[in-house]
Amino acid sequence: MAKFNVELKKVVDDSYEIELGYRLYDALVGDIKNGLVGSIKKFAVITDDIVEPLYAHPIADRLTDTGFTVKVFTFKNGEKSKVRQTKEYLEDAMLDSGFRRDCCIIAVGGGVVTDLAGFTAGTFGRGVPFINYATTLLAAADASVGGKTAVDTPLATNLIGLFNQPKKVYIDIAAWETLPPRQLYSGMAETIKHACMADREFFDFLRDNMEKIYSFDKTACVHAAECNCRIKYSVVMKDERESGLREILNLGHTVGRAAETVSGYRLLHGEAVAIGLAAEVHLSRRMGYMTDGEVSEVESLLEQAHLPYRLPDYIDREELVKKLYTDKKVRDGKLRFVLQKGIGEVVCFGENVYATPIDEQTAREIIYEI
Amino acid sequence: MAKFNVELKKVVDDSYEIELGYRLYDALVGDIKNGLVGSIKKFAVITDDIVEPLYAHPIADRLTDTGFTVKVFTFKNGEKSKVRQTKEYLEDAMLDSGFRRDCCIIAVGGGVVTDLAGFTAGTFGRGVPFINYATTLLAAADASVGGKTAVDTPLATNLIGLFNQPKKVYIDIAAWETLPPRQLYSGMAETIKHACMADREFFDFLRDNMEKIYSFDKTACVHAAECNCRIKYSVVMKDERESGLREILNLGHTVGRAAETVSGYRLLHGEAVAIGLAAEVHLSRRMGYMTDGEVSEVESLLEQAHLPYRLPDYIDREELVKKLYTDKKVRDGKLRFVLQKGIGEVVCFGENVYATPIDEQTAREIIYEI
Repeated sequence: MAKFNVELKKVVDDSYEIELGYRLYDALVGDIKNGLVGSIKKFAVITDDIVEPLYAHPIADRLTDTGFTVKVFTFKNGEKSKVRQTKEYLEDAMLDSGFRRDCCIIAVGGGVVTDLAGFTAGTFGRGVPFINYATTLLAAADASVGGKTAVDTPLATNLIGLFNQPKKVYIDIAAWETLPPRQLYSGMAETIKHACMADREFFDFLRDNMEKIYSFDKTACVHAAECNCRIKYSVVMKDERESGLREILNLGHTVGRAAETVSGYRLLHGEAVAIGLAAEVHLSRRMGYMTDGEVSEVESLLEQAHLPYRLPDYIDREELVKKLYTDKKVRDGKLRFVLQKGIGEVVCFGENVYATPIDEQTAREIIYEI
Repeated sequence: MAKFNVELKKVVDDSYEIELGYRLYDALVGDIKNGLVGSIKKFAVITDDIVEPLYAHPIADRLTDTGFTVKVFTFKNGEKSKVRQTKEYLEDAMLDSGFRRDCCIIAVGGGVVTDLAGFTAGTFGRGVPFINYATTLLAAADASVGGKTAVDTPLATNLIGLFNQPKKVYIDIAAWETLPPRQLYSGMAETIKHACMADREFFDFLRDNMEKIYSFDKTACVHAAECNCRIKYSVVMKDERESGLREILNLGHTVGRAAETVSGYRLLHGEAVAIGLAAEVHLSRRMGYMTDGEVSEVESLLEQAHLPYRLPDYIDREELVKKLYTDKKVRDGKLRFVLQKGIGEVVCFGENVYATPIDEQTAREIIYEI
């Protein structure tokens, strides 16, 4: 009867800077004073209970001293907190403290904190700016580039969330020294994934420098952080919305994420990804894309990184097979895997197609193999 | 120590079409067949329990007959459902039914349904497309243009949500006939707000044609729907992110939204907005922007529309004053109101400034006046 066109075409600039270094508190405060988030004067620092005294308070105190209004909001550390209930808690606590749309969120912590705080920022007052201050190797490898934020639900991990870009990311390498060793090792899994997927030279570097990184050698740590950013960036730039190429970042995550859930989060995310990478290289060998020697090389590097590459006995294999179907790559009810081609490359299955259907029986055999 | 630029500049086209008419089921199905949402074959129809049998099933059945996979997800009607818990319920139900990122959400209903479904679509799988099929006058007036989606929380209404644009909006005027009279009247409040705010001629049209609209005269209904779209569109286009001009859409909402909450939702949204408009015209008169005659004209039109323009006795006036501070326009702890200048215009308080600080005592006096 009548039609009406709503014209909404515009240029959006979500570009941002990543700064890598040691103790970046003053850099952060200086950037904010220089207008990083415009004229905003109210800051909600979101963190977990481990990071709170170590990094959140030093940052909050410096901002308060500079004259800003700052409040720290803390939740319990760990992947189990990455749920809708924690987001609700943060929203209610912020509203209760008088935060409205004229604020900025600063996420201080690892991947769980940056995921949760980025998602919260995206829907608080229909979107307020946020800044990531990443304190873990995992956050440096995974959460600092890409704009993916999400929470887990009982039925799926990372499926409720947003693409939301931070105003700036700070990667504080000094913070790695205070990580519990298991957390540090866990962060290495995504780093190894990046090497397996895109950069043979980086793989060799990790093999030759693992001990240096784990003893916090500056040059080695900065190089590892830079390679992570560069590799992830090169993928995300070509496919921000995960329509094709970006699926390669799922390498090792099909089995990995399912194992993480089935373990009831006894496995840390990176540990689960390491096991997922092992499953993936076994599958890649089975499909003819990797040699025995290459599979051993990957497993050796995982071992060198103090990461598991076999499923723990307590994991119910059949439950794991079932869980694979909650993977976001599932299409028309079929499991799909990203596979690697030797080391440093993934298999391309057609134009912009990087995940291939794998029948359930094959997936089951691989799961029993590792 | 090292810096890294993530370049994310791009052109985004969120344009969409609004179609007004009678029984638009076939138009909707035809558009989907013609690629409105690309090659998507799975549809989640989100609706409330009143609308479900009337409109959601006819739409779902037609889509199923055409070969699509469709499931209807229903929640209890009413503003009380516009909360995070309902969004969670919808997410879990969709995940449990196998919905992943390759789906489209169709919202069928009034403003609560379109707000909730639009928000759910924005974060499901980090964003799936959605379509609005609006069945109420309120949805036609308010929810069809602007892309605002949100839920209420105990501490604030509409503060958790997203700007998220639908792929298309259908306004089914035939559906107005099946609305309970109170719902129909309630929808007229936002229509009267649009007239007060931007269009004296439309105000006169409503005064002369209220009975025609309420008896579903086609020409009058279509004209009213079109004016609503046109007025709202002209505001939203100039200020999509609500930085200045868009605040004028808050006319009557400062007291209105607070009254809605304090009433425990005994007042429908539109009824509360009508009372809020009455408060606002009293305040505008007090500030010298409206004459006694103009105030009477607005109150008469509200009366003609079967809408309240005095606070019910059961509302605690002091609680209402306190509640005003949860308004999103509050800045630096000060209440801010949009005021109208005569009828058909709002007061501009400076470049791009349309809300002015009002001290608490003045707000209190107005609240006791109405």
